[in-house]
Amino acid sequence: MLPVASEEVFRGRLLRLDVERWADPDRIREVVRHPGAAAVLAMTRDRQVVLVRQFREAVRERMLEIPAGIYDEPGETTEGTARREVEEETGYRVVSLRTLGRIHTTPGLTDERIDLFLAEVEPAGKPEDGMEVVELPWDEALALVHEGEISDAKTAVAILLARARQETGTTAGGS
Amino acid sequence: MLPVASEEVFRGRLLRLDVERWADPDRIREVVRHPGAAAVLAMTRDRQVVLVRQFREAVRERMLEIPAGIYDEPGETTEGTARREVEEETGYRVVSLRTLGRIHTTPGLTDERIDLFLAEVEPAGKPEDGMEVVELPWDEALALVHEGEISDAKTAVAILLARARQETGTTAGGS
Repeated sequence: MLPVASEEVFRGRLLRLDVERWADPDRIREVVRHPGAAAVLAMTRDRQVVLVRQFREAVRERMLEIPAGIYDEPGETTEGTARREVEEETGYRVVSLRTLGRIHTTPGLTDERIDLFLAEVEPAGKPEDGMEVVELPWDEALALVHEGEISDAKTAVAILLARARQETGTTAGGS
Repeated sequence: MLPVASEEVFRGRLLRLDVERWADPDRIREVVRHPGAAAVLAMTRDRQVVLVRQFREAVRERMLEIPAGIYDEPGETTEGTARREVEEETGYRVVSLRTLGRIHTTPGLTDERIDLFLAEVEPAGKPEDGMEVVELPWDEALALVHEGEISDAKTAVAILLARARQETGTTAGGS
């Protein structure tokens, strides 16, 4: 299904906003178009989770999140973006990477999808400017999700999915 | 912290889009302003999860989600919205409701927050037009998250959080 009419009302550096008219039933939808992103639950061999804390202008708060980046390099694979973002944002190098899942962040308003990965990482260099890297023991990261201190949806899903897979012994991602 | 300049470039029925200039360091942010929402993991006494399947224009797909609704009724509490949306979208009545957590759906682009609740529900009436209500055994709902068939972030977080709390015996939500 496609809309019967669509008007692009904004096109910026990151986002595009379309106002769409759908026929059945008659309705208007404001849709934010987003290129999608990769996000990585990065863990060291001794089970430290490598997170980044950064100021998020949209919510006026510093937030604790897994490293992530938008698909903005033409020709780069999702895994390529995942590896690059971990290395740029944290200074850690990705030793191995596997698929954890994929989410639609908020399908009532945007087509944004985030591919989630689980990576083993090792220290390698320095993060990019402005990034505060936070290493936490795995159990502590999990506790922060439960306490609501980690509220970013992609980060919560990645940590909770990885936790659930540990229990069941399932390591493969969803198809 | 606040932006040094902000321009409203779009204001629609649901969304507002601001282009903000931030001073330190110099950067531009496209920010989607959203009123926030409540979403409810609704379970019957015999552990059926009550979900809704609806066409999401933004992603051009029918998606399976927990019932949810935007804060668009002046003066209504978050719990009030949660109860109302369950009843409107599913036809089930909320018997008891408790807090499960809160997420920022995607803080790189919007201030949208979703309060997550866990509810016990019982059949009461009919859902609103256009809503397909799907009752699933709890284990099956959890499996759909792991398989990627449930990809909506709020739904995945709610199911995985509830699952984790069952194991630990913790029923209280985050502060």
